[in-house]
Amino acid sequence: MGHGGGGRLSADLIEHLFLPAFGNGTLAALADAAVVAVPGGRLAFSTDGYVVHPLVFPGGTIGDLAVNGTVNDIAMSGARPAFLSAGFVIEEGLPLETLGLVAEAMAAAARAAGVEIVAGDTKVVDQGKGDGLFVTTSGFGVVPEGVHVAPNLARPGDVVLLSGPVGLHGLAVLSVREGLEFGSLIESDTAPLHGLVAAMLDASLDVHTLRDPTRGGLATSLVEIAAAAEVGIELVERDVPVPDAVAAGCAFLGLDPLYVANEGRLVAAVAPAAADAVLAAMRAHPLGREACVIGAVVDDHPGIVTARTGIGGTRILDLQIGEQLPRIC
Amino acid sequence: MGHGGGGRLSADLIEHLFLPAFGNGTLAALADAAVVAVPGGRLAFSTDGYVVHPLVFPGGTIGDLAVNGTVNDIAMSGARPAFLSAGFVIEEGLPLETLGLVAEAMAAAARAAGVEIVAGDTKVVDQGKGDGLFVTTSGFGVVPEGVHVAPNLARPGDVVLLSGPVGLHGLAVLSVREGLEFGSLIESDTAPLHGLVAAMLDASLDVHTLRDPTRGGLATSLVEIAAAAEVGIELVERDVPVPDAVAAGCAFLGLDPLYVANEGRLVAAVAPAAADAVLAAMRAHPLGREACVIGAVVDDHPGIVTARTGIGGTRILDLQIGEQLPRIC
Repeated sequence: MGHGGGGRLSADLIEHLFLPAFGNGTLAALADAAVVAVPGGRLAFSTDGYVVHPLVFPGGTIGDLAVNGTVNDIAMSGARPAFLSAGFVIEEGLPLETLGLVAEAMAAAARAAGVEIVAGDTKVVDQGKGDGLFVTTSGFGVVPEGVHVAPNLARPGDVVLLSGPVGLHGLAVLSVREGLEFGSLIESDTAPLHGLVAAMLDASLDVHTLRDPTRGGLATSLVEIAAAAEVGIELVERDVPVPDAVAAGCAFLGLDPLYVANEGRLVAAVAPAAADAVLAAMRAHPLGREACVIGAVVDDHPGIVTARTGIGGTRILDLQIGEQLPRIC
Repeated sequence: MGHGGGGRLSADLIEHLFLPAFGNGTLAALADAAVVAVPGGRLAFSTDGYVVHPLVFPGGTIGDLAVNGTVNDIAMSGARPAFLSAGFVIEEGLPLETLGLVAEAMAAAARAAGVEIVAGDTKVVDQGKGDGLFVTTSGFGVVPEGVHVAPNLARPGDVVLLSGPVGLHGLAVLSVREGLEFGSLIESDTAPLHGLVAAMLDASLDVHTLRDPTRGGLATSLVEIAAAAEVGIELVERDVPVPDAVAAGCAFLGLDPLYVANEGRLVAAVAPAAADAVLAAMRAHPLGREACVIGAVVDDHPGIVTARTGIGGTRILDLQIGEQLPRIC
């Protein structure tokens, strides 16, 4: 508890654990707020809390997940992420090694994404009043001139593109949490997507909508886009790439892969004339090599997402009532 | 748990509880990130987690505390707070009424401070893995041209000003947590300080350093300033206003009021020639009516804060090892 009291132990934690990991002059100033220079214009600002259990899973930790997640939320506005903050709620008794490992993972993810963690906060709660570690990241980035990407900008006729196979993050966390083996090891797809987004926008500014299908999966993202833009979306289910191991794990667990969380994928609605160029740009990027067309935006049934199933039928995708995978991010 | 799964129940929580409270067009767009326009220049960016226990205490709730706390952290750079985000980690079983009350308190605090809550996130953890509610707010504001306020800018000769009496927040939380009565009711001083800061900077741009003495209290803030600026600070202990009820409570509990948290106070280091004007501006502001001189910055003993005691001796104020009041904010 002493490490959360704002005294010497708090200062030690910051000086010896967080500063060396995140080290940059802005954070090191230890002011109440970080002061950074930005150009005028539009900023994309986002926050996300991470309560994933366990803290370490195949392919990542809560730390890189927290950095990549907020980087991606910012990128989904077409912005270039620049500055992040990190808030930690630590349960008394969390090993300092674990906290150090998470901080290192955050620092590595920030370096990889080209963002700086310039502000932070640490709180400690009594044993039994938390669950090891919760991390909340916030951040902002600059939206380039001419870029206008938002959930409500999807238009009938738009082509729906997906950047790669779905379900890896959710299944990776679930497999280690439940001690399941799915034959081959499934790793989380956690990755920063702003480079892929920049490549897409370089190919065309007619990218209307971007969303990273995290909690709730691809289906939930599509439903949210349909609702925001008051359009229909027609998904061709068999065109959605699902890795064999994810399909097997989902079958075993009774999960629908369309609702399983991803942390390194995006779905886009792109003007039809631009779709080929944007798809080519995605495939030329390491995080979009398996990009594909999965459906179209339509003016029928606004607010509703339909999926043409593998056997030729059609089902309606809706928001699930609750969670199928709690604490997945 | 269903309310945290990203499905229908999550959407309901956002649509029916948070949106009506925080209602603004940017948040209502429900994009992954909020897009806001800012002028070019310097931004102050800050984050703070709130784990205060209990969630409701005399004079405030975790909600207004979380808004005012981040507003104040931004204001301590001389910036005008503009946009906030709010992340919630909710323990399964928290009454929706409590969450609603906190959201309303946040909305009211944001209105009072003239800031917009434009981004948010909600996570739910299992019963026994949290403690009702943790809130992390982040935010940014614009630093006006010509304003340069930072912990390392305090200079020997600077006058140290305090905006009002200390110890109210810490004692208010402690009294209700421990079921103590201190004769009269002590209320938290939680308040947004950016208006007071703006009044001070209008009086003079020679305000060098601002800090709000929250966790760790006034003593910790002064030690942090002394360390950052590599200067000494000489505090005149009897010039620090301590309300009678706080003094009595601290005596009873064995606490030092200089280390008790405040949530609506600031301490400033101001160039000597500007001190009278800045002090007058503080006293003319509702949140600085009891502002006073409490000491001076010196070039002796850099990094060390001394306090001249009421009986004429001198003691050294240092960071406390751990916490005297856990989970006070």
